[in-house]
Amino acid sequence: MKETNLKIIPLGGLGEVGRNMMLYEYDDTAIVVDCGTMFPENDMLGIDCIIPDFQYLRSRKDKIRGVIITHGHEDHIGAISYFLSEFNVPVYGTPLTLGLIKVKLTRRGMINNVSLNTIRAGESIRIGPFKVDFFHVCHSIPDSVGLGIETPEGLIVQSGDYKFDHTPVDNWPTDYAKLVEFSRRGVLALIADSTNATRPGWTPSEQNVSEAFEKVFSQAKGRIIIASFASLISRVQQAVNAAVAHRRKICFVGTSMVENVEMAEKLNYLTIPPGTMVSLNTALELPEEEVVIMCTGAQGEPASILGRLARGTQRQFDIRRGDTVVLSSKTIPGNEEAVFSTINDLFRQGANVIYEEIAPVHVSGHGSQEDIKLLLHLTKPKYFIPAYGEVRHMMQAKLLAMQTGIPEKHVLVIEDGAVINIKNGKAKIGGQIPINTIFVDGSWVGDLGPDEMRDRAMLSQDGIVLVHVNLHKENGELMGKPEIISRGFAASQEAQEILARLEKPVIETVKNSNGNLEKNIIRTVKNLIYKETRRNPTVLVTMSNL
Amino acid sequence: MKETNLKIIPLGGLGEVGRNMMLYEYDDTAIVVDCGTMFPENDMLGIDCIIPDFQYLRSRKDKIRGVIITHGHEDHIGAISYFLSEFNVPVYGTPLTLGLIKVKLTRRGMINNVSLNTIRAGESIRIGPFKVDFFHVCHSIPDSVGLGIETPEGLIVQSGDYKFDHTPVDNWPTDYAKLVEFSRRGVLALIADSTNATRPGWTPSEQNVSEAFEKVFSQAKGRIIIASFASLISRVQQAVNAAVAHRRKICFVGTSMVENVEMAEKLNYLTIPPGTMVSLNTALELPEEEVVIMCTGAQGEPASILGRLARGTQRQFDIRRGDTVVLSSKTIPGNEEAVFSTINDLFRQGANVIYEEIAPVHVSGHGSQEDIKLLLHLTKPKYFIPAYGEVRHMMQAKLLAMQTGIPEKHVLVIEDGAVINIKNGKAKIGGQIPINTIFVDGSWVGDLGPDEMRDRAMLSQDGIVLVHVNLHKENGELMGKPEIISRGFAASQEAQEILARLEKPVIETVKNSNGNLEKNIIRTVKNLIYKETRRNPTVLVTMSNL
Repeated sequence: MKETNLKIIPLGGLGEVGRNMMLYEYDDTAIVVDCGTMFPENDMLGIDCIIPDFQYLRSRKDKIRGVIITHGHEDHIGAISYFLSEFNVPVYGTPLTLGLIKVKLTRRGMINNVSLNTIRAGESIRIGPFKVDFFHVCHSIPDSVGLGIETPEGLIVQSGDYKFDHTPVDNWPTDYAKLVEFSRRGVLALIADSTNATRPGWTPSEQNVSEAFEKVFSQAKGRIIIASFASLISRVQQAVNAAVAHRRKICFVGTSMVENVEMAEKLNYLTIPPGTMVSLNTALELPEEEVVIMCTGAQGEPASILGRLARGTQRQFDIRRGDTVVLSSKTIPGNEEAVFSTINDLFRQGANVIYEEIAPVHVSGHGSQEDIKLLLHLTKPKYFIPAYGEVRHMMQAKLLAMQTGIPEKHVLVIEDGAVINIKNGKAKIGGQIPINTIFVDGSWVGDLGPDEMRDRAMLSQDGIVLVHVNLHKENGELMGKPEIISRGFAASQEAQEILARLEKPVIETVKNSNGNLEKNIIRTVKNLIYKETRRNPTVLVTMSNL
Repeated sequence: MKETNLKIIPLGGLGEVGRNMMLYEYDDTAIVVDCGTMFPENDMLGIDCIIPDFQYLRSRKDKIRGVIITHGHEDHIGAISYFLSEFNVPVYGTPLTLGLIKVKLTRRGMINNVSLNTIRAGESIRIGPFKVDFFHVCHSIPDSVGLGIETPEGLIVQSGDYKFDHTPVDNWPTDYAKLVEFSRRGVLALIADSTNATRPGWTPSEQNVSEAFEKVFSQAKGRIIIASFASLISRVQQAVNAAVAHRRKICFVGTSMVENVEMAEKLNYLTIPPGTMVSLNTALELPEEEVVIMCTGAQGEPASILGRLARGTQRQFDIRRGDTVVLSSKTIPGNEEAVFSTINDLFRQGANVIYEEIAPVHVSGHGSQEDIKLLLHLTKPKYFIPAYGEVRHMMQAKLLAMQTGIPEKHVLVIEDGAVINIKNGKAKIGGQIPINTIFVDGSWVGDLGPDEMRDRAMLSQDGIVLVHVNLHKENGELMGKPEIISRGFAASQEAQEILARLEKPVIETVKNSNGNLEKNIIRTVKNLIYKETRRNPTVLVTMSNL
């Protein structure tokens, strides 16, 4: 049976921030928009990242005709290698976006068998029943686009990450004309960034960061170290501009940052005057007042360059008294503690540290309440679907939309997996497909779930106690003594003492056990430990029948 | 040998936030100010709280003549029971502060053998060479004081937590006159709250919260549920006032909140008109528009009442569609993710959620930059010692002090354990005593350290694999097969498969092992697992010689 209505299904990014992915289906054609990763939350122990759930896509494998990427940030491109290894369909994006994807695929040895197709902002493509207009938007990375997706059921506008910046770093404002053109054609639904829906006013221009950099550079007497994301290409340009203006050389440290800078410069999205960029070795030998070092680690990651500088464990160089360190990126929720701890340690190392809380060295790339209302007025959608946010952001975006005159029932606050059916100019939520949290841990993807997270959480709370008993294979009697060891449960001497006291009760338990011996030993050990310490370690028992 | 100079030693609260404790020593007398707990950071796995390090106090045990508490928040009173069980000295505090301490000591069965001495704001006490003036300050709990400590070497002012609020809930402003009197007498050193030194302007008045509550109460159609800290007694009064004004009944849920409310009302720090307070059972039966429920859990703690409401696991009642939930407290750094996740879940349950980011339903109790500058101008200290903050806060407070004209060398940015020697009107840093992070986990205090934290972190990252081998006690040959189990390392089926593949290499390792068999087995297992999965679980080996 043919499905003749339009289906829009968010597969990531609605309800939690990151791993963005949106699916558009009509007849036998499906297109995917964005394919990002999400940072693990603090209770996702040991997880490297989270990617979108491809389960539903697998059931639509033959229909998928392409993946369109709106811009080159990790939460929109991070999972592309996982996606392409299952669904080798053409990728569409602007030159810089594809450049960043190329860097990523090259690193994974996947660059040869993929079809990367450059579409510039202002251009459009046709994929089956879909005609997709790419329109330029301002964001904290150049060459970002939103999409106008003309479907047989009407025009859907998906904003991508955007803000209205009248003085962007690349002097390329959001394409207002195209947005107005869309509204003339009639927008059936606007799917728009609501990340900053709780922030009043307008998001400040990137120009503010240039001004803050100007102030920092004017006052710094020693070296300037700027930490940011490797993909914040606009921020790199601002650092280069400030370095040039203040006769400093700049060097980039960290593989991802070096690779991205190289690529962006080659594609002319980054202008570095000859002689400005130097190697780290040169930078370390230059007079301190002539140096800018740009690196990653603004999230306080202990293994990052800034993290290691803060703890004095960076191999190549150290913080020197008189250094000015600038953290020029937002703190991802959940990382506050790590970021502040890094800042404190940098102060302890003798640096002066400038960060968002005390100077505007970062501005958001996402539109605030007034930006969102402007987008609504420019596009005049019939339906509004807040996206790219937690539930609280989308709920707030709903209020904003209602303030601009959109009736409550035309605002659809939905989460990942909700199926939006569009037919005859009407949008309805028609069910929910299951969406799992797909964990990447090491080289394995998707094997871990809530059970293993719970096990890891248990282990992390009170450590582990291990009991081994040898039993006579015929009469089940204990042979020798039980062996009892622990890890992370108590300090070594205290642990030794309590483990020694466990021996006798365990021997008694084996002697008197009815039923499940393993469970009985676990109960004995847990009870005694809890009684003495009020701790609750994981207890594991191994048994040999000899 | 007699020490005749004055020593001030911060034992907690300088360099990291919480577990406040300050020691003043002169000749054979020492007094302790405050005795608080600190919330564990996210990487302090399984830890309940952190208390001050009493090691130095133990060496001064005979000198300690009393402990003075500035106010009743946990970061100033939380460790009092641990302290009093080692140092049974008189406690001095204002009536409400002692009331909160009594609640705490009663719960621990320690109320009988302690000496609690009421000193009201405006009064003073003499302890050996120290004369201590208690002066009233505004904070987010009533009956807070700062201290003017007259010593033979001069007057030291310790602010306690404070802000300048011209319209506090209890209409009792900070004691400006006393501060000016101090400056007339000459303040040798001001030790002052710098928690909010990075915030520009003035900290808003508690009045702002009353206005925000007024707005919330005017608009709410269903029940109103307010979550806060159990010790935010001023906030409780504001909730009561709003309830009365809007003809709602209020009920308190949660042991600590109920106990504190009862005590504060008895001491007249809380005014609840007769008939206003109802039981939860009554509240659940009243019409929704006549109910306010006040509870704890504004930090997103999963086990708290609000946490369980958000997840739908509260035993006594559920969130209903139309409920308005107000989170009226600051988010402690590190808890952002838990708080936002709670907010999202409350929205998912159908509540409208009001929190600090979208409405001023909380204001800080700590002075901002202008408050700090005013305190400096009122007291005119010779030396300034920023306190109660992370390093970044204290560094910022230093800049503020310098702006008010204090020379850089008279601002002492120090961390816990620094010994300030004061003699002949000069303050010098004279060394550093070691300060450990004292973890409370269960009923044991202080046994855990960095090693155990590292073990727990390792366990939490990739779980554990356990290998048991039985060896012939004479020739060391393997008897039977190795037993290999895991927890939290991989999903069960995948783990089974990989553990099965480990059997042969482990057998080979036993056969060919030279040197330390345990280490060799660990290396074999780790290498194979890492090669296949890029994961790095903890590997533990037990061996029986039979």
